[in-house]
Amino acid sequence: MIAVLRIGHRIDRDKRITTHVALVARAFGADMIIITTKDEKIKKNIQAVCKRFGGDFQIETGVDHKKIIKSWRGTIIHLTMYGEDLEKGICSIDRKKDLLIIVGAEKVPPYFYEISDINISVGNQPHSEVAALAMFLDHYTNGLWQKKEFNGNIQIIPCVKGKKVLSKGTR
Amino acid sequence: MIAVLRIGHRIDRDKRITTHVALVARAFGADMIIITTKDEKIKKNIQAVCKRFGGDFQIETGVDHKKIIKSWRGTIIHLTMYGEDLEKGICSIDRKKDLLIIVGAEKVPPYFYEISDINISVGNQPHSEVAALAMFLDHYTNGLWQKKEFNGNIQIIPCVKGKKVLSKGTR
Repeated sequence: MIAVLRIGHRIDRDKRITTHVALVARAFGADMIIITTKDEKIKKNIQAVCKRFGGDFQIETGVDHKKIIKSWRGTIIHLTMYGEDLEKGICSIDRKKDLLIIVGAEKVPPYFYEISDINISVGNQPHSEVAALAMFLDHYTNGLWQKKEFNGNIQIIPCVKGKKVLSKGTR
Repeated sequence: MIAVLRIGHRIDRDKRITTHVALVARAFGADMIIITTKDEKIKKNIQAVCKRFGGDFQIETGVDHKKIIKSWRGTIIHLTMYGEDLEKGICSIDRKKDLLIIVGAEKVPPYFYEISDINISVGNQPHSEVAALAMFLDHYTNGLWQKKEFNGNIQIIPCVKGKKVLSKGTR
């Protein structure tokens, strides 16, 4: 089980970035996202995507981070530009355990650096938590997302030009 | 030369996503970003990052997309969830030529699908142009970003806990 814990989400300012974080979590193989701030709108949006595009990705919002962290029985990592090198960090994760990935917005309090088993960086340049999560999941799962079947009502067929979309009625 | 062309940027709505797109372009090995909408604030922000963290990444805003596309002498690709499979798409790109990567915001007009040599998808699930750009650049450059030296005034040293930051005065 891979879960993403999104902390510090501010409803107005971060709505689009947090939506991207949630969609990336789903598309790149996480099982769920927990957003500490209560935000019913994002929850509905993500659930609507799941309904159309398939998979059993879960979303919860308004959950106290301390409760999650305290009860987590697996590994906890935190994605940050200050963390350990991506490949070295991934090597030190026990893959038999569940994984909680903390993804911050803007400045992350020292507490999260401390309680994480390992802080991991996707490069040490400033960029984006959206990109960092995608890259981490890609490398951690050895690109498994490329083979994942979502069995949704809508399915996109890759094509060089234009759009090929299958919806359940037309298949 | 790898350039990113960001189209459809709406100053208020997209400012944070476009900033992430620009930072990802820089961190993952593109040479420049061109944002079709004039936005001096984003330009200043990105230039400030370059000044502190190094590299010679360039940013231009308020440039007509038709002018760029018409004068582009290399390959043009467009990142979209409807496009060709990532690995297949990358294989068909001539690496000797300059590369222009079109990255849209929300709905992209058919014109861009048509004028691109190839439309490429990073998975066929909805997620994020920020993640798509990072993944594309990672795969296209075979992870070269991990070795790139930026020689900035600020340098982050990877570490498992806490923050290690070198600034030019202290090195």
